[in-house]
Amino acid sequence: MSTRDKYHDVVKQALLAEGWTITNDPLSFSYGKVDFRIDLGAEQLIAAEKNHRKIAVEIKSFIKPSPVQDMHEAVGQYEMYSLALDFEDPQRELFLAVPERAYDSFFQRPFIKAIVKSRAIKLLVYNIETQKISAWIK
Amino acid sequence: MSTRDKYHDVVKQALLAEGWTITNDPLSFSYGKVDFRIDLGAEQLIAAEKNHRKIAVEIKSFIKPSPVQDMHEAVGQYEMYSLALDFEDPQRELFLAVPERAYDSFFQRPFIKAIVKSRAIKLLVYNIETQKISAWIK
Repeated sequence: MSTRDKYHDVVKQALLAEGWTITNDPLSFSYGKVDFRIDLGAEQLIAAEKNHRKIAVEIKSFIKPSPVQDMHEAVGQYEMYSLALDFEDPQRELFLAVPERAYDSFFQRPFIKAIVKSRAIKLLVYNIETQKISAWIK
Repeated sequence: MSTRDKYHDVVKQALLAEGWTITNDPLSFSYGKVDFRIDLGAEQLIAAEKNHRKIAVEIKSFIKPSPVQDMHEAVGQYEMYSLALDFEDPQRELFLAVPERAYDSFFQRPFIKAIVKSRAIKLLVYNIETQKISAWIK
């Protein structure tokens, strides 16, 4: 199992542990002739539900040598998924899942905080060791 | 010369042909402990000036097998560079440079048009063969 798949699996386990049902893995949708199923290389969305609350989760591992590069992709995907969901499934909230290690260091830099705030990115912080969700941050 | 470097060079030549002066290649800056010089892998910004007008250009080649993947990176970089420039150099306008081939097909899809509009992304369309700028689209 690749590191990326491992992180993907940890987030799923962490959601299940909090009583969420995984409804789609990956969440496939297309909008305006853009098919997000053939989004090769990108970390894919999963969908989950709990008590009529619906979420989509973009799982990022932040394992690249440059976290700035990871962040470019994360922000771009978040923007595009967010706009597609607004059209296709507006009740579903989008979260960017980031490992606690990245959240505690990289995400504390003033500029990264500024971009998260400016783009209103909702975060789901997960812990690789405990396989639990550490925080939901809106 | 890599394909990416070739595209980078074409945009520079196209700007020079329109009377711009290239002032920084790459444009290096850091903000809030994020050093954009060490942004490995990302296509870097260049800066140009003409008649007291200052621009920064994010050059994308759109040569990946999945243009959606290219677009994630392009949008994420644009958001981050845009926010950094707002703080560091607010007079400088940011453009995303895309090859005409990508503009004429991928960028005409309704969803891609929607994201460009929603994020107010300014485009500089360039032609690889003529080495000229085809359009500035704000």
